[in-house]
Amino acid sequence: VALSCVCSAVSIDEARKQLFAREKMMRLGGQLLLRKEEEEANGKLMTLKKAEITKAMETQKFPPSMHFFRAKELIEQSEVFHILKKMPKGAALHLHDFGTVDVDWLVKNVTYRPHCHICFTPRGTLQFTFAHPTPSSLKQDYCSKWILLKNYRRNLKNVTEFDNSLIRNFTLVTKNPELAYQDQSAIWAKFDSIFQAISGLVHYAPVFRDYISRSLEEFYLDKVIYLELRVLLLPVYELNGKTHDQEWSVRAYQEVAAQFAKDHPEFMGLKLIYSDHRTKDPALIKASVRMAMELRRAFPDMVAGFDLVGHEDTGHTLYDYQEALLIPSLEGVTLPYFFHAGETDWRGTSVDNNLLDALILNSTRIGHGFALSKHPAVMEDLRQRDVPIEVCPVSNQVLKLVSDLRNHPAVALLATGHPMVISSDDPAFFGAKGLTYDFYEVFMGIGGMDTDLRTLKQLAINSFKYSALLPSEKKNALWTWEKAWNTFIGELAKT
Amino acid sequence: VALSCVCSAVSIDEARKQLFAREKMMRLGGQLLLRKEEEEANGKLMTLKKAEITKAMETQKFPPSMHFFRAKELIEQSEVFHILKKMPKGAALHLHDFGTVDVDWLVKNVTYRPHCHICFTPRGTLQFTFAHPTPSSLKQDYCSKWILLKNYRRNLKNVTEFDNSLIRNFTLVTKNPELAYQDQSAIWAKFDSIFQAISGLVHYAPVFRDYISRSLEEFYLDKVIYLELRVLLLPVYELNGKTHDQEWSVRAYQEVAAQFAKDHPEFMGLKLIYSDHRTKDPALIKASVRMAMELRRAFPDMVAGFDLVGHEDTGHTLYDYQEALLIPSLEGVTLPYFFHAGETDWRGTSVDNNLLDALILNSTRIGHGFALSKHPAVMEDLRQRDVPIEVCPVSNQVLKLVSDLRNHPAVALLATGHPMVISSDDPAFFGAKGLTYDFYEVFMGIGGMDTDLRTLKQLAINSFKYSALLPSEKKNALWTWEKAWNTFIGELAKT
Ligand SMILES: [Zn+2]
Ligand SMILES: [Zn+2]
Repeated sequence: VALSCVCSAVSIDEARKQLFAREKMMRLGGQLLLRKEEEEANGKLMTLKKAEITKAMETQKFPPSMHFFRAKELIEQSEVFHILKKMPKGAALHLHDFGTVDVDWLVKNVTYRPHCHICFTPRGTLQFTFAHPTPSSLKQDYCSKWILLKNYRRNLKNVTEFDNSLIRNFTLVTKNPELAYQDQSAIWAKFDSIFQAISGLVHYAPVFRDYISRSLEEFYLDKVIYLELRVLLLPVYELNGKTHDQEWSVRAYQEVAAQFAKDHPEFMGLKLIYSDHRTKDPALIKASVRMAMELRRAFPDMVAGFDLVGHEDTGHTLYDYQEALLIPSLEGVTLPYFFHAGETDWRGTSVDNNLLDALILNSTRIGHGFALSKHPAVMEDLRQRDVPIEVCPVSNQVLKLVSDLRNHPAVALLATGHPMVISSDDPAFFGAKGLTYDFYEVFMGIGGMDTDLRTLKQLAINSFKYSALLPSEKKNALWTWEKAWNTFIGELAKT
Repeated sequence: VALSCVCSAVSIDEARKQLFAREKMMRLGGQLLLRKEEEEANGKLMTLKKAEITKAMETQKFPPSMHFFRAKELIEQSEVFHILKKMPKGAALHLHDFGTVDVDWLVKNVTYRPHCHICFTPRGTLQFTFAHPTPSSLKQDYCSKWILLKNYRRNLKNVTEFDNSLIRNFTLVTKNPELAYQDQSAIWAKFDSIFQAISGLVHYAPVFRDYISRSLEEFYLDKVIYLELRVLLLPVYELNGKTHDQEWSVRAYQEVAAQFAKDHPEFMGLKLIYSDHRTKDPALIKASVRMAMELRRAFPDMVAGFDLVGHEDTGHTLYDYQEALLIPSLEGVTLPYFFHAGETDWRGTSVDNNLLDALILNSTRIGHGFALSKHPAVMEDLRQRDVPIEVCPVSNQVLKLVSDLRNHPAVALLATGHPMVISSDDPAFFGAKGLTYDFYEVFMGIGGMDTDLRTLKQLAINSFKYSALLPSEKKNALWTWEKAWNTFIGELAKT
């Protein structure tokens, strides 16, 4: 009930108290009851958080309002960040196959393996392949001849400088991102060129398996125990040029994850969301949907569903693909969708309508949903159906959807407890790692001064709740997470 | 009701239609029924709008996502902008006394008037005064001696260059705003220095009256027929140094507005919101509140209420001023409040709580309310009480609250029809003029592709609905506006 008149300082304080309480209860996680030890841990955390934000208000240097490439070093000096690193964050549900592993490993390990060849395109981008003997003919005529990297490195004066140049080719990171990437097209072009560059490395069968294992390990070390990966399942090749099909790749994911689970009992596994590129012709997407149906039939506990990836503004819309996307329901087959939608600033355009179509097509989750708050009817329905958005703040900032993360639309959604999970999209390309940087941005920037441990806990719980885990798997995962959570709380409360 | 399953392309189209219709009805103005001629005019306008946005999506040059200082020229090439210029926009309710008139006039007219003196501070800022004879002693010891500007100009090699430097001193405009203003403190410092610089000009009695008249004229030419000004009512002085009190100034506003109304029958007048600076000590604000009560008693049809102005992040909060602000209600006197609140990116801080206190203290409108969508409970209550926010997009961008206006929080509020009016704050300091630039940013950037004439019409209607005009004055103003609106529609439909 709205207040009608205030006539004293006492009634101001009372009215404030009521408003604070109402907003707390509306906030994501605001209704969680904390145990005594959690309250103590929360006190410690909030003291640090308030000190850091208060200092930032003075210095006007606040990492969430700075570009991540410049903020990263500052973030790493934050005590809050180090607590978030230790916090069991649950699952990461929005990741892409080859954007997960620190590119250092690609450069310092993978490119040093035997039989690694490089070629240079006229545009200055790179390609790699593993082969023996050195392939004489070029696969692509827009590239130089293949050079054995070992020989190439031997002739270099400064190998470190060369290796650093590889790192620059494998990430979006740069000193002056505003200058380097004047608009979204520019950064998506670089994004695609990274994918081109690493493709020959990561699709080599031994590297492919190692890459999966490294992904699991990096996230595990970052206190993430379950992953869902959007995967394109492009052909994986052997040294002799022989290639494998999608089933082979799914099996590789399955085997590597199983081995990792054996070595790490707290690890809860990995599921795949088969994906295709939204640049493709609608006719081709029909085949991809059928492939997704087939893979899900063959690997019901590994393949969770289907998605479409790539730059939304320039790609096909879900509406363009409707015929393909209706195949499963017409044929009575269940194929959950996990659509990227609303990763755009262009409200009211056909691109922006992807959000409407993701809702209509019963998407299980929405990738990004950056434009959701511009669509109140879609927002209402998604909330009613408990369909979460996957918020990836670092990605949204680097890909130029928003500059100051305090203006990220998730601010309002978090304030009203809209269903959401936090993820990191392609941390490797952004110079990030795991999930903690994104949690930091959410906790400090999107959440504001008053968002506390309740929200963090709810986000971790949400990451299982909204996952594609089966009910029994979910129960197990939550139970495993909770043990780790309690240990974390115990340590934080003691400090 | 949420849809459960979609099994055909037909049902997709039907579901989309329903979502589009629901979102249209939720949008600000979406429920307005347009006459046939308005529909035609809307068609013309929307064709142009869609063409401009579609082109911007290709060129990646979209004025609302660029800094206003760079966007201004592009905006002026927009056909939509020229239609908006002609559109009767109603009233401007959030303006500050000396930020309304194009500074060209200050430089080319006011500083050329007889007896105008200048002095230079060590920090490179300027001060002016009118006096005769030249004041021998300095009012402020941090300034050079007073120099008669006429003599000073006579000795200059390049007067044009000097006059341009004055313009630079009187506005925030600069080629590289990101470099010139690294943070909000920097731009607010410059903001204050502008006010210092022009203060001696605009408070000289003859200029003071002319400034009021020019304000009315510039807005009138921009199709704005009623203004509400936040005024500090600092002492106005005569050539002999004699100063006038607040009552004198209010009377000057009243007389100049009456004369302007005589010459321009469609002009609907001017009201004042007496304001003080939120840097001031709470004890001093008590006197200001009493002054506001006194002025409103003496000029009930001129003085609408009270506000506090200046940089919110560094100033006192409403909570600090509670004792002063409770005086009227304790004494049974009506003093409407028009508080600036939520002009901050620091959610959850004591600054940000101004929004809560503005609600609790029954503010009639909220200046900016930029942070409102972060406060769902406050938002709910304000909506229930039909208290609007005053959205000033150009100001918010220039003062560094948000860079890309497509991420302005008003996007979500406009989409749900939250009560709002559009205003321009201090257009003169931003290099803008009147109200049209802000309407352009709202229509193109905040509204997105699908926002149409309904929203524009509702915003114009809102500007009277939420004004401090008396019911009879409102009726008259709406009637006058509607005549102009119909003429505008007739012309637009015909083109
Ligand atoms: Zn993604
Ligand atoms: Zn203002």
